[in-house]
Amino acid sequence: MTGEKKLVVVALGGNAILQPGQRGTFDEQMANVHTTCEQLAQMVESGKYKIVVTHGNGPQVGNLLLQNEAGKEVAEPMPLFVCGAESQGLIGLMIQQNLGNLLAAKGKGDIPIATVVTQVVVDKNDDAFVNPTKPVGPFYSEEEAKALESDKGYNVREDAGRGWRRVVPSPNPIEINEKAAIRQLVDARSIVIASGGGGIPVIKENGKLQGVDAVIDKDLAGERLAVDVGAPVFMVLTDVDSVRLNYNSPEEKALSQITVTEAKQYAEEGHFAKGSMEPKVRAAVRFVEAGGEKAVITSLDKAFDALEGRAGTTIVKG
Amino acid sequence: MTGEKKLVVVALGGNAILQPGQRGTFDEQMANVHTTCEQLAQMVESGKYKIVVTHGNGPQVGNLLLQNEAGKEVAEPMPLFVCGAESQGLIGLMIQQNLGNLLAAKGKGDIPIATVVTQVVVDKNDDAFVNPTKPVGPFYSEEEAKALESDKGYNVREDAGRGWRRVVPSPNPIEINEKAAIRQLVDARSIVIASGGGGIPVIKENGKLQGVDAVIDKDLAGERLAVDVGAPVFMVLTDVDSVRLNYNSPEEKALSQITVTEAKQYAEEGHFAKGSMEPKVRAAVRFVEAGGEKAVITSLDKAFDALEGRAGTTIVKG
Repeated sequence: MTGEKKLVVVALGGNAILQPGQRGTFDEQMANVHTTCEQLAQMVESGKYKIVVTHGNGPQVGNLLLQNEAGKEVAEPMPLFVCGAESQGLIGLMIQQNLGNLLAAKGKGDIPIATVVTQVVVDKNDDAFVNPTKPVGPFYSEEEAKALESDKGYNVREDAGRGWRRVVPSPNPIEINEKAAIRQLVDARSIVIASGGGGIPVIKENGKLQGVDAVIDKDLAGERLAVDVGAPVFMVLTDVDSVRLNYNSPEEKALSQITVTEAKQYAEEGHFAKGSMEPKVRAAVRFVEAGGEKAVITSLDKAFDALEGRAGTTIVKG
Repeated sequence: MTGEKKLVVVALGGNAILQPGQRGTFDEQMANVHTTCEQLAQMVESGKYKIVVTHGNGPQVGNLLLQNEAGKEVAEPMPLFVCGAESQGLIGLMIQQNLGNLLAAKGKGDIPIATVVTQVVVDKNDDAFVNPTKPVGPFYSEEEAKALESDKGYNVREDAGRGWRRVVPSPNPIEINEKAAIRQLVDARSIVIASGGGGIPVIKENGKLQGVDAVIDKDLAGERLAVDVGAPVFMVLTDVDSVRLNYNSPEEKALSQITVTEAKQYAEEGHFAKGSMEPKVRAAVRFVEAGGEKAVITSLDKAFDALEGRAGTTIVKG
């Protein structure tokens, strides 16, 4: 293989690590991550791509919050953003170990892999802080929720008849704080796992970073990561193999390649579900508008084919 | 400042993060880490040193184990080595954020800082696996302990009349698995935080890494790290400012510079407490025997002076 390898930032969806209905044992998660890493290893093995991997952490942080709550009499609970840092360690370990083992078996064990604990800077004046919308952690009774509201200043909200939950802001990612270090690793041909769970949200106060309890959308953070490390390709992996118009209707139509203009128009027409496909398309559009060559949205099993233009939805300039 | 900066691997003691008697809130830990990072920032600011930082994680992993236990009905408990990975995220965040803020205030905000999730390879045939000795996690009643022994295969032991505890192996670190990535960062002039808590212990089975429930001594792992990244100086920070002969006796004598031969002789004569100063001196001796220029043992507040030869105990060849 000659020539420069193309850098791809890959954002893994939730199913890549924990699947609906699973209990979430370490062994279950490792088995899922193993399957995920087989796809990532294929990209690396082809000799055409360098990769930076990012991932969600919803179920893992949910569990850490439950453990913090259950153990609050015996161990000081940590803030949400610290649980995010802990989940980066947990998930980073699973990915780097599985991917390393797979690459070693393919004779590529000399490629370094590193998980970088990543802070993502958000604007303390982001509207999201005025109107927190992202539910996190356990369900509470109304009484418990109101107590958390007065004792800890939590924002709480009734969640579709299922009970009360804490809601936190979901601000826009501005900058990957560790981008320089991540770039150094990428330039030296390491595989990097970064910005897990959308990153640890931090604001700047008097020139100092400090953590805030918030959840950054992992695809939007992945887009920032892709721009900040200068990747030409940003790939979002999810549970459908391509972006669809009229999803789940008789007129459903898969999109193979669309322009930014088309993507924005379809989004305006309401084709993409809020909190699901909509932020992924938004992240893809942002990436190409920021100068990226192409964004690709597909499923895990089609990831390599989609990079090669044989599957998935590709969003390009225009 | 001209000339090459000297690379120092700094192993932080437990007090650097959480002090005896503290409850362990995030704010308490951040305040301690801030003080610690002021010393680290001084080394960086001098323009003479590049640093790689490693640290213990005992109280943090202890709390994660308590939370896992307390929440076991609502969230799948994670293995000990996974709690170690989580603690690397937690402590790494605290160090990288505080150190970054301090360096930014000194006009050195352009030095990248990265925490690398670190696996440390141990030998599956290490004697430690036959004879586990390191107590971890909560105290149990004899009945609970025996149940854990039969249900989960834990090794349990009565701990000096205070109750029963799980004991795990404390194997010898062989290799820092992420050494290549850490070296890339160091070569590119980043500050790296790595191998926290002695690293995530992994064994090789059929060429594949897998995590094991064990605790690697953080100073011995720090020594491996220092050798694996080619550092000429390895510094162990603890709660006394120098190594002492006849510690806590009328004949107590502080050592300023000793050779490896002297250090080994003093160790044989029983001058250094097991599980406390003894492994630190052992790590220092190993480092110099492996080709390191010097190892330094001192307290946090004397760290910079000790590097300059004005405080602490320096161990050199001979």
